Amino acid sequence: MTLCWVDGSPADALCVKDRGLAYGDGLFETILVKSGQPLLFERHLQRLASGGQRLTLALDLAIIRRECMAFAQQMGEGVMKLIVTRGDGQRGYAPTPDAPPRRVLQGSLLPAYPERNAEHGIRLFSCQTRLAEQPLLAGLKHLNRLEQVIARGEWQDAEHAEGLMRDTSGRIIEAVYSNLFLVKDNMLQTADLSRCGVAGVMRAELLVQAQAAGICVKVVDLQMADLEQADEVFVCNSVYGIWPVCAFERQNWLVGPLTRKLQNLARRLLDI
Amino acid sequence: MTLCWVDGSPADALCVKDRGLAYGDGLFETILVKSGQPLLFERHLQRLASGGQRLTLALDLAIIRRECMAFAQQMGEGVMKLIVTRGDGQRGYAPTPDAPPRRVLQGSLLPAYPERNAEHGIRLFSCQTRLAEQPLLAGLKHLNRLEQVIARGEWQDAEHAEGLMRDTSGRIIEAVYSNLFLVKDNMLQTADLSRCGVAGVMRAELLVQAQAAGICVKVVDLQMADLEQADEVFVCNSVYGIWPVCAFERQNWLVGPLTRKLQNLARRLLDI
Repeated sequence: MTLCWVDGSPADALCVKDRGLAYGDGLFETILVKSGQPLLFERHLQRLASGGQRLTLALDLAIIRRECMAFAQQMGEGVMKLIVTRGDGQRGYAPTPDAPPRRVLQGSLLPAYPERNAEHGIRLFSCQTRLAEQPLLAGLKHLNRLEQVIARGEWQDAEHAEGLMRDTSGRIIEAVYSNLFLVKDNMLQTADLSRCGVAGVMRAELLVQAQAAGICVKVVDLQMADLEQADEVFVCNSVYGIWPVCAFERQNWLVGPLTRKLQNLARRLLDI
Repeated sequence: MTLCWVDGSPADALCVKDRGLAYGDGLFETILVKSGQPLLFERHLQRLASGGQRLTLALDLAIIRRECMAFAQQMGEGVMKLIVTRGDGQRGYAPTPDAPPRRVLQGSLLPAYPERNAEHGIRLFSCQTRLAEQPLLAGLKHLNRLEQVIARGEWQDAEHAEGLMRDTSGRIIEAVYSNLFLVKDNMLQTADLSRCGVAGVMRAELLVQAQAAGICVKVVDLQMADLEQADEVFVCNSVYGIWPVCAFERQNWLVGPLTRKLQNLARRLLDI
């Protein structure tokens, strides 16, 4: 049995009136847990808090912090998923003003990724599904994820560990489960996420740490030509760290030095 | 206590692993029930079936039909909300192939709308929230409804019964809870919903019935200028039928003859 709490108590069910179910009206975080500690936890809480502000969810961060710490302690090791929703609703989109947000915590085992993903890199599938441009939701890890569900349904083979997602204007935004970085002439580039995409916790951490290490970093609009001309390509998230990208369509890349350097950095962040 | 079933049995909770909660991975229908009968039921089922096909949800429509009929019978009168989700998931967007879709039915009382809405018309709020253009999801009544939640949060006064929603390109698409029609020179116009918006059951029924009654009907891209120049404006859904729009920003309209004619038609559809 996997560990699961609803509003701080062990439970594996929640009220059918929950607005998370009705409208995807909420946010989530997927947090790596090792030795009973949630990793990159402050960044996860930071993103959650800023999402709560943008969706006007009255989150009690002190309770959320406490519960996550206690839950991680019980889990020991694995992936902790935190969902916060606007709580129970009545019929209609208007929120019930006095309904407190709901907290759901679910634990799962550490995923068993093939060693080669981190060592030799992954093949990136070219998703046809495009991300709609919605600045009001851009960057948030909210519960409206049908675009990712459809995109992930585009490939079944085990050859592709990730899929590249563009927006409806053709710009490169991210991968289905992660953010994408390019290296060109020793400069690190990743997509601007003000129109769509999820602003990943590992992405944020890498941007800060790379800059601190004297690496030139640019958050820009990325076109397909930028990918074609990139010297190195990698994807990142807060569970597996960094995977080099070794292939996309007819293109191939070797694992580059900057990717390795940042990968080691990510490893240290995800290992205590 | 309100009536509630999960997968055909009385229950008011569902598994926290449900993909409806995790990703909004599902569809819903809001169905008016009178004298134990679900109204416009075939159209609701039709839309659900086409949504299921587009999201590759393996819906068992025979079971859904049977459950809705039995549920409506028990309710007698009110609003029946049907949610279907992709069922329980594991971690990650990829669907578990063998998880059967989940069915949730919730009953609520007939909403008590002010008489004047139908008689004298409603004021339409001008929502700043724009609908993102996502052809893959356009028309569907799916569970990713954060845009509507944000839009509905824009006004708190009771003066506005509905809000007008445009897409990110500025086209008029719909209202928050309903579809919008304009009348110009005795021609009925409503927005093309191939980029965004919910293709309402009442909208579909009115389009068919108006055409059958010899009324010229056009499904087009609507600009704000079309609204300004309209002779009549109304909103419609499958719960309240038709409400004339009497005001939007500085503009006012009288309840016109075509609106009244179609309103009577909608009344007959929602009354047995």
